[in-house]
Amino acid sequence: MKFQCDKSNLVQGVQIVQRAVSTKNTMPILGGILLETTDNDEIVLKATDLEMGIKCSIKADIIEPGSIVLPSKYFSELVRKLPDLPITFETNQNAANIIYGDSQVVINGFDPEEFPILPSLSDTDAVNVPGDLLKHMIRQVSVAVSKDESRPVFTGILTEINENQLRLVSTDTHRLSCRTGVLEKGLSSRLEIIPGKTLTEVSRLINDEESITISFDKNQVLFKIDNISLISRLIEGQFPDYKQVIPKEYSTKVRLETKTFLQVVERASLLAGDEGGNKANVIKISFSENSLIINMNSPDVGKLHEKVPAYIEGEEIKIAFNSKYLIDVLKVVDDEEVYLELSGTLSPGIIKPVTKDNYLYLILPIRTV
Amino acid sequence: MKFQCDKSNLVQGVQIVQRAVSTKNTMPILGGILLETTDNDEIVLKATDLEMGIKCSIKADIIEPGSIVLPSKYFSELVRKLPDLPITFETNQNAANIIYGDSQVVINGFDPEEFPILPSLSDTDAVNVPGDLLKHMIRQVSVAVSKDESRPVFTGILTEINENQLRLVSTDTHRLSCRTGVLEKGLSSRLEIIPGKTLTEVSRLINDEESITISFDKNQVLFKIDNISLISRLIEGQFPDYKQVIPKEYSTKVRLETKTFLQVVERASLLAGDEGGNKANVIKISFSENSLIINMNSPDVGKLHEKVPAYIEGEEIKIAFNSKYLIDVLKVVDDEEVYLELSGTLSPGIIKPVTKDNYLYLILPIRTV
Repeated sequence: MKFQCDKSNLVQGVQIVQRAVSTKNTMPILGGILLETTDNDEIVLKATDLEMGIKCSIKADIIEPGSIVLPSKYFSELVRKLPDLPITFETNQNAANIIYGDSQVVINGFDPEEFPILPSLSDTDAVNVPGDLLKHMIRQVSVAVSKDESRPVFTGILTEINENQLRLVSTDTHRLSCRTGVLEKGLSSRLEIIPGKTLTEVSRLINDEESITISFDKNQVLFKIDNISLISRLIEGQFPDYKQVIPKEYSTKVRLETKTFLQVVERASLLAGDEGGNKANVIKISFSENSLIINMNSPDVGKLHEKVPAYIEGEEIKIAFNSKYLIDVLKVVDDEEVYLELSGTLSPGIIKPVTKDNYLYLILPIRTV
Repeated sequence: MKFQCDKSNLVQGVQIVQRAVSTKNTMPILGGILLETTDNDEIVLKATDLEMGIKCSIKADIIEPGSIVLPSKYFSELVRKLPDLPITFETNQNAANIIYGDSQVVINGFDPEEFPILPSLSDTDAVNVPGDLLKHMIRQVSVAVSKDESRPVFTGILTEINENQLRLVSTDTHRLSCRTGVLEKGLSSRLEIIPGKTLTEVSRLINDEESITISFDKNQVLFKIDNISLISRLIEGQFPDYKQVIPKEYSTKVRLETKTFLQVVERASLLAGDEGGNKANVIKISFSENSLIINMNSPDVGKLHEKVPAYIEGEEIKIAFNSKYLIDVLKVVDDEEVYLELSGTLSPGIIKPVTKDNYLYLILPIRTV
């Protein structure tokens, strides 16, 4: 294998694929990046941790076809520190000789034959999604993804395509986040669970201008973002029937400024998090007299009394929430005002943007004495 | 104590002084910020860890004079999260009531009588230094300050004023950094050791446009930066006679592009840091045939051969350095080219900017087999 390329192209390619490099030490070759020549003056870089793989092609002058796997730890660092000179890359058995100016580095690598093959998708369903829409949707549902690996379904994001409608849903069983987007051209019907980590990486790779192609086969999903492909396994299992969980009615509807609500909860959480005070993160909120009222008392730290305007329809109510779950949604809801719909002290609350009908966040209250 | 002020002023003041709040838990009151009214519509905020103290005055409408100490941990966070409303601040014994809109927070504090008094300077020598010059000088000498608290003198920066000349010198015994600046109006003669940590904080507080006043008394130094005062103890002890250490002559003088030299050393250090390879961080450099040449061999990682142009006067030479010490100086030397002056394999090397005569970095070579 022998090729020439620019430093900047190589740096870009390495930075993109190294997100998929395995951080576990169980199989050393998975800590590597595969480089492979193609027939059309491109090098393909690949990395995978067996759950997710990223592939990226960069322009290069191919002199001799071939492939090699180099340890990401050294190769990524080295490439970033190369001078801005044309680079010649040549393999000799399982080592790569990288030549620039009068200097050269030899990096010991692995046999490319032993690198896992990134599967290709067969029999696929595909849709196109505008990059900014997908990035935004992922941001809004990522907040409710569970980190608990013992229940894999909740570490994923339900991805539902129904004609021209794309819907992402996540839940960690304490709250649920649901975002709907409209596609120009959809699919008849598809329901899959994509790992939350995969969608976070997809979101990182997206720049606003791009249109993303999402393809599914039986066990996998593929995202195409310009010259980048990200492939990931799907999560097997049954996602809870989220529609059934979402209350259809409410007895109290509150309208609040998002920023004001966020700041009030953040201030209250300063006292809620204190060991000497309440149970961690619990804040009790009253809605009455067209106000949101919070009273907190931490013997060690101090006291807080918050009262801000809120438009209240229906019954006045007291309810307790985990402040972290409120802060999470109020940071991503992306509207100047929110509705909070409540149906009693022990029923789930719903938070929605006021001017849009595409997002919903359900939050379970906390039973307090 | 009672006053009114804007959120933004309070945030600014708290952010400045909290750098001096003690992070140790030995005396809880040192984790606090003192607030104190003045006679001229200002509040003074103070914090100290007994080594260094920062004082900052902010505009406020004083309604009733007084003072209080509030725990920085809660007060700083709270202040940042206040709404953009006028704030009324009122004390009741050792608690502060902070009122904004229809809301209020009470934070339990400490008796201000128990807060250590920030000493005032008597019998002082003072000089003015342009902010950008001082910031730049501190950056260039900070790299060689020792972190080893068992030898306090080396954790400080020698500060020498001699007529119109200000000189900062630091050494961790492996290298020495010396920067000279010219003052408009100097002092007859002053030689002090200022803690490196103090000068780092001073550098953080400086914005380019300011002129800084530095005052000394017997045991302390005071920096005035606009409405901010930073006071610090001086380090007692004998700083090594740095002039004696700096070689007057050399047998080899090399001229090199700074960026090229830096990148070469950074690439070589990738292999030098490897456990399977050389002793950590040691790189051997040859200067011959108007080139800098580095050869490294790490059985596990690979090999490196670097050759870049260098203008060499005098004897050709091989020498070994700690790559970290070279990287540190090449990042702050601030000139497109550097001179490296050498006097044999076992004698210290000197690095200097080519177009300026105000900076010098001495580095001890490593004896290799």
